Amino acid sequence: MVQASDAHAASAPPASPAGARAGEFELIARYFRRPSSRAVLGVGDDCALLQAVPQQQWAVSTDMLVEGRHFLAGTDPRRLGHKALAVNLSDLAAMGAQPHSFLLALALPAADDAWLSAFSAGLFALAEAHDIELVGGDTTRGPLNLCLTVLGLVPPGGALRRDAARAGDDLWVSGVPGEARLALGHLRGEWTLGPEALEQVLPRLEQPTPRVALGLALRGLAHAAIDVSDGLLGDLAHVLRASGVGAEVLADALPRGDVLAAQPEARRRACQLAGGDDYELLFTAPQARRADVVAAAAATGVPVSRIGSVDGEPGLRLRDAAGHSIRTAWASFDHFAQP
Amino acid sequence: MVQASDAHAASAPPASPAGARAGEFELIARYFRRPSSRAVLGVGDDCALLQAVPQQQWAVSTDMLVEGRHFLAGTDPRRLGHKALAVNLSDLAAMGAQPHSFLLALALPAADDAWLSAFSAGLFALAEAHDIELVGGDTTRGPLNLCLTVLGLVPPGGALRRDAARAGDDLWVSGVPGEARLALGHLRGEWTLGPEALEQVLPRLEQPTPRVALGLALRGLAHAAIDVSDGLLGDLAHVLRASGVGAEVLADALPRGDVLAAQPEARRRACQLAGGDDYELLFTAPQARRADVVAAAAATGVPVSRIGSVDGEPGLRLRDAAGHSIRTAWASFDHFAQP
Repeated sequence: MVQASDAHAASAPPASPAGARAGEFELIARYFRRPSSRAVLGVGDDCALLQAVPQQQWAVSTDMLVEGRHFLAGTDPRRLGHKALAVNLSDLAAMGAQPHSFLLALALPAADDAWLSAFSAGLFALAEAHDIELVGGDTTRGPLNLCLTVLGLVPPGGALRRDAARAGDDLWVSGVPGEARLALGHLRGEWTLGPEALEQVLPRLEQPTPRVALGLALRGLAHAAIDVSDGLLGDLAHVLRASGVGAEVLADALPRGDVLAAQPEARRRACQLAGGDDYELLFTAPQARRADVVAAAAATGVPVSRIGSVDGEPGLRLRDAAGHSIRTAWASFDHFAQP
Repeated sequence: MVQASDAHAASAPPASPAGARAGEFELIARYFRRPSSRAVLGVGDDCALLQAVPQQQWAVSTDMLVEGRHFLAGTDPRRLGHKALAVNLSDLAAMGAQPHSFLLALALPAADDAWLSAFSAGLFALAEAHDIELVGGDTTRGPLNLCLTVLGLVPPGGALRRDAARAGDDLWVSGVPGEARLALGHLRGEWTLGPEALEQVLPRLEQPTPRVALGLALRGLAHAAIDVSDGLLGDLAHVLRASGVGAEVLADALPRGDVLAAQPEARRRACQLAGGDDYELLFTAPQARRADVVAAAAATGVPVSRIGSVDGEPGLRLRDAAGHSIRTAWASFDHFAQP
């Protein structure tokens, strides 16, 4: 667009590098500029413009994924595109919000066409599955970093908040928490899984399924909800603290699946109770609604397990099948805590 | 909150590092958890909840700042806090949007209390000046990276879009584009400024002033607007391409200020026309509204300069005071272009 014309050539070196092959703007256009049916104005201006939706509140969340921290270097870019959006959709799921749109800020070491092609394919496949549209973003050069912001809709009073757990509630969890951590331990060389076991648990780490439909089905049914991103006990502690209640967790009521069941008890419990990255929903609901919870789970095709109960005694009590207390120092994953 | 209890101590090492001194959650609470008067639910849950505002659309933008790319290593954290929010507010200004709320995702090499204290002080000082509230975020460990998402409000049809420039419009710019680039060149050792000159231009680089009030005053008056983040000619090219028009820019009509005026012509022009990081507003408005533009600028205390005109001939023509064409290869700053 900027056209060179004749005479008076300015002799100074460009203050900034001039646009070159496959530059930032071209890359944005190639992989990330898509027509939006939902935004008044989508990718390509200083801001996206979104119309207010009558009788709905906005649920907004941002999550940053850093190479070496949230995913290993060399992770398949298609799976990474899936995961970057999945962990953000999981935050909407945990509020019972309907996905609406998202923004993507991306720092890349280099403008790698093949990487971007695969990354965007994984990203948009999941976006289309959840009917959520990319409406804006930013790309820059830097150590690999993915920062997504998601927007969803929830009717006033309908959100599943952390501070809404009540004494007497049942404690539920979806899926099989711990499988993602089991896969990570194998990749890190902490333990070794057989090929079949790895094939079963690796997708839980690399391509987690955000429980959006379950979150929506739990509106008006569950009290509090959170997604298990940092470890079950630690995330539960956030709920208990915010709600001013306590809970008893029955460790042996946690779902196992074949692969977790085959692990030594200590490893299995560590993965189940403190492993992060599962993106399952941990939620509380009144005892009187047990059948409704089971029906909501069945309707959305997501297995749920009742793993304990909320009570008025502050703190978190962990018991085995015989009713004995289990001692644990496991809190949740803290990105700044020293190992 | 997670309490150790007796018996059956699980002997596995924690699957994730247990919470330790000044961990992630504590840091978030200490520096970034503030009461929100604007959100239904602010920092601390899976999502923030925002009430729809009647008769207003949302303007949403995300910008990522990477150390070594958008700011030099060792940049004063208080100034960096200011700048991280300023560049995002500038996107709202360029749409004519009223700032409402923001989210902050932050990757840090370490949980440095002094750094966070200064960073958050700079961030919140600017947030309070613009009445914008932090409603959510994420913190993690990683190479220093700041990703902000801002939300603003604009009445339907009131936004200043890139695609709204019309042939016959005047071309205007606020402030003194090029001063930020002049300061950067000094810091990089490309040239040397005297202490007084540096003192004058360094704040333009390190603590840019987002032109929010001017953007609001230009609603219903300007046609198109963009903020000059990547260089004046390159950003203008975005407007021209989106609007399907061309423009003539009078290089000598660009404002200079004392410091730019004292530079050799080639360096001055390079800084003015292709220097990034100014966060001034470049906008178009009908000739018939010249007096109104001047009045809007005066009312908001922001100097504006008329630097050219929009026409129907595709492309961008740059001329000096004598009317001669100036040849330039300067496009806008492209984070992936090879220098």
